[in-house]
Amino acid sequence: MSGTPRLVEVRKNVLKHNDEVARALRQRFADAGVFVVSLVSSPGTGKTRLLENLLGAIGERHRVAALVGDLATENDAVRLARSGAPVKQIVTGTVCHLDASMVERALEGWDLAALDFLFVENVGNLVCPSSYDLGENLRLVLLSVTEGEDKPLKYPVMFRSVDVVLLNKIDLIPHLDADVEHYVAHVREVNPRATILPVSARTGDGMAAWFAWLRRFAAAN
Amino acid sequence: MSGTPRLVEVRKNVLKHNDEVARALRQRFADAGVFVVSLVSSPGTGKTRLLENLLGAIGERHRVAALVGDLATENDAVRLARSGAPVKQIVTGTVCHLDASMVERALEGWDLAALDFLFVENVGNLVCPSSYDLGENLRLVLLSVTEGEDKPLKYPVMFRSVDVVLLNKIDLIPHLDADVEHYVAHVREVNPRATILPVSARTGDGMAAWFAWLRRFAAAN
Repeated sequence: MSGTPRLVEVRKNVLKHNDEVARALRQRFADAGVFVVSLVSSPGTGKTRLLENLLGAIGERHRVAALVGDLATENDAVRLARSGAPVKQIVTGTVCHLDASMVERALEGWDLAALDFLFVENVGNLVCPSSYDLGENLRLVLLSVTEGEDKPLKYPVMFRSVDVVLLNKIDLIPHLDADVEHYVAHVREVNPRATILPVSARTGDGMAAWFAWLRRFAAAN
Repeated sequence: MSGTPRLVEVRKNVLKHNDEVARALRQRFADAGVFVVSLVSSPGTGKTRLLENLLGAIGERHRVAALVGDLATENDAVRLARSGAPVKQIVTGTVCHLDASMVERALEGWDLAALDFLFVENVGNLVCPSSYDLGENLRLVLLSVTEGEDKPLKYPVMFRSVDVVLLNKIDLIPHLDADVEHYVAHVREVNPRATILPVSARTGDGMAAWFAWLRRFAAAN
């Protein structure tokens, strides 16, 4: 395909520019003392429901805010704003991921020093967001047990790029041909160092353990 | 972001080239008398399970074959080859979609005139594949009822690009906070002309109606 080598080269420059903006963001986050968590996953794994829980539970003791990325609609921001936390939607149009400049623009006018935690929900996509550093301190992927046990093997670049894997919707396990042990083994195969926590954002199963883990991790970093 | 306008321009050229290759492919498919169906969806909606069923059921009366796209692994091709139909894996590496040239290369050495149906499974992604014509006669999206009712609204470009929406995993409806009517209404909102069929590739619910629809549609086109 004649256009491809040029496309690869242009992409490299875009990624290089993104890395520079992300580096500056990371410094700003550190200076302001805000801990930034980014969330990636396929569409429909429960990122927004998890974020509702996070803003509620972490928001009880800490000052929290969220940015949410989508190709279209402001639905998630409207839904999350009910928590009372500052929330801003980033609408990406046809772009399949957030980049550091989008995050930088969305934060204009925000006082980062007034926050303890900032959550950034990416566009639902297991490919595009993997190469874009957003200056986050922690990247987590949500993997739903309805998705099939082979997903970490099929999307290794994404699963390798994360610090935490939340295995969500475990309340549905009895109704599926799925085994939590297989999910864990396949994550381990591509990313041996990731922390893996089984949760159900719907029933609340495993959520207290995950919140405690996040607080400990943020305090130590 | 300084790199972006150039990236958009290069992408336009890539899409233009893709359209030319797709046009040639479509002519080849027509000349050979093969009906080509492409499958798109999020990761983990059941494309490969559906394809197993299609190769089995449509393969009883017609000559069928499949191409399957993934970033990594040959798992799907191995799994589908058990049907006895010709199957080839396209490994895309870091590319989040198939393009017409990949399909063209994968078909090298195949006698298209010996086929009635060719199924092409795209990479699991609700964004990237939408703009790439593969020369197919019919494009279908699989939407799992575990994904959340808002997905057609959040990924309108993809849902607008398809002819058929298979609403899969309806056997899980009793265990979810989900309503088939809401899914249908949200698809209708972005794509009023798409055919919507509820199915369960696991239990077989709705599959006979879908196979019959596909046979009728192919015979009429």
